[in-house]
Amino acid sequence: MDIADMAQRLIAGERRALARAITLVESGRADHRAQATELLATLGTEKQALRIGLSGTPGVGKSTFIESFGLMLTGQGMRVAVLAVDPSSSRSGGSILGDKTRMDLLSRDPAAFIRPSPSQTHLGGVARRTREAVALCEAAGFDVVLIETVGVGQSETVVAQMSDLFLLLLAPAGGDELQGVKRGIMEMADLIVVNKADGDLKATAMRTQADYAGALRLMRKRPQDPDGYPCAMTVSALEQRGLPEVWQSLKSLSDWRRDHGFWELTRATQARYWFEDAVKTALLAQLAQPHARAALAQLSDAVARGEQEPAAAAAAFVRELRVDDV
Amino acid sequence: MDIADMAQRLIAGERRALARAITLVESGRADHRAQATELLATLGTEKQALRIGLSGTPGVGKSTFIESFGLMLTGQGMRVAVLAVDPSSSRSGGSILGDKTRMDLLSRDPAAFIRPSPSQTHLGGVARRTREAVALCEAAGFDVVLIETVGVGQSETVVAQMSDLFLLLLAPAGGDELQGVKRGIMEMADLIVVNKADGDLKATAMRTQADYAGALRLMRKRPQDPDGYPCAMTVSALEQRGLPEVWQSLKSLSDWRRDHGFWELTRATQARYWFEDAVKTALLAQLAQPHARAALAQLSDAVARGEQEPAAAAAAFVRELRVDDV
Repeated sequence: MDIADMAQRLIAGERRALARAITLVESGRADHRAQATELLATLGTEKQALRIGLSGTPGVGKSTFIESFGLMLTGQGMRVAVLAVDPSSSRSGGSILGDKTRMDLLSRDPAAFIRPSPSQTHLGGVARRTREAVALCEAAGFDVVLIETVGVGQSETVVAQMSDLFLLLLAPAGGDELQGVKRGIMEMADLIVVNKADGDLKATAMRTQADYAGALRLMRKRPQDPDGYPCAMTVSALEQRGLPEVWQSLKSLSDWRRDHGFWELTRATQARYWFEDAVKTALLAQLAQPHARAALAQLSDAVARGEQEPAAAAAAFVRELRVDDV
Repeated sequence: MDIADMAQRLIAGERRALARAITLVESGRADHRAQATELLATLGTEKQALRIGLSGTPGVGKSTFIESFGLMLTGQGMRVAVLAVDPSSSRSGGSILGDKTRMDLLSRDPAAFIRPSPSQTHLGGVARRTREAVALCEAAGFDVVLIETVGVGQSETVVAQMSDLFLLLLAPAGGDELQGVKRGIMEMADLIVVNKADGDLKATAMRTQADYAGALRLMRKRPQDPDGYPCAMTVSALEQRGLPEVWQSLKSLSDWRRDHGFWELTRATQARYWFEDAVKTALLAQLAQPHARAALAQLSDAVARGEQEPAAAAAAFVRELRVDDV
């Protein structure tokens, strides 16, 4: 694979080059990993999109929201990429971006690029690969990268770790259900958007928005927020109402953060996090190399037979691994 | 520290040597780690105790059970060690073996050795150190090692990974609460013991025992179980009734497993697990070495400034780390 050529085509905006590059960063093969690393280094980190993390449980209308919101942005001349982090252990058939037909118009929009979640190994691996796919989309010149996840487990934390802004999408619900959103997620949100503010649900949506606005006011002020943030709004993705206001709100917040140094600070902190994550992954990847695996299997057998004690065998292995590699 | 001398004293049954050895394996210092590894290698894995994992939520009478059960065993001439894995993120004041006065008689018994959970870093670290403390207790000639934990989160899985037998202690409760025990924990249990079968609670305890016995019969048969296992029993730790039956039941099961190869198989599988765990820990421990930390900090700064891409910087770091070390 010619990495320089792939980089050039990707920067030039060739969709196929981007798709192939994402497949490359998603691969678990050692040679692919080395090529992916080379590609990412070649592309650098100069071009930046606005990265918007987006979480919502199934049923809140996430696909409809992304379709309507994405089309509004492309309508304003922006290029929009949509990626996903799927925290489920086994691939849930079409539940998260598996089925592009749920975003029919957006998926056919030449200014949009939709990519399903990489296939499962573990959340950590999916996270790193999605973070790298975000970097590829930035290099390809997208203006906005939406990173979708569902509101369960650790996936929101992981998505927040690669986003400039975090949007929590909710459905209209009675006041009692406000407890359903975990405090940790509330503390991550820059914007809470109550969807389905249409038809019979409109009044409930307004009440839900007011409930969350009240809850947000009670939370401790974060240094990265100007007055009035985080805030809660209502939209109807179906009727395409409230979406310009959501965009305006996100834009104002990101402009303020740029002006006050928080944008750069967040990006720097996140880059450090992913660097340390990559270091740990690379160290542990040594164990998958053929000679390491052979030595590991041999020592593991000795340990299983009780001939060696686990800690001593491990220390011996790590010593040997280093000498072997030079 | 003279490791050969410490090993000799520990094998001779000196309590102070055992206590100091456990402190050594619990230490996070690199030089202590090397000494701990040497000590464990010196002691080997020949002497084996019966390792009993014991889980129960607060309020089931775990301390009383351990005290009564432990005293019964020492009364029969056995030497008993009690260790703990505390999964709570911050040390919970005295809730788990922090306060030996809750096992007043056992803690003063010369045939017993009680050690609180090591201070917290993360569960993984606590687990490895407790596993090594178990090995030290075995080398010191204890017949039974009880490894206590509370029934929350991942700690039961970790304790099961270092136990020959796993005992789940429960309090009498209405049938509805049977759901409170997670299926994964039920599947781990070799013996379910309903405590507090005394006074007003006796009838409830019997019903609870019957409920769990029924639930166990519905579960898939495991190859490592003879007929009639896993089973459910009642005890009164307070009135010291039912304890010989619990011991008999555990003894029969472990004898059967020894005779049928499952004891060795489990020990071998566990040893492999802890070996692989120690390898990963040792690999990541390289990051804590001074020259690695300096290189890491420098690269992290470059990544934060956007001069290097996280994945490329990580690959460069891992290459450099190996060359530096030889």
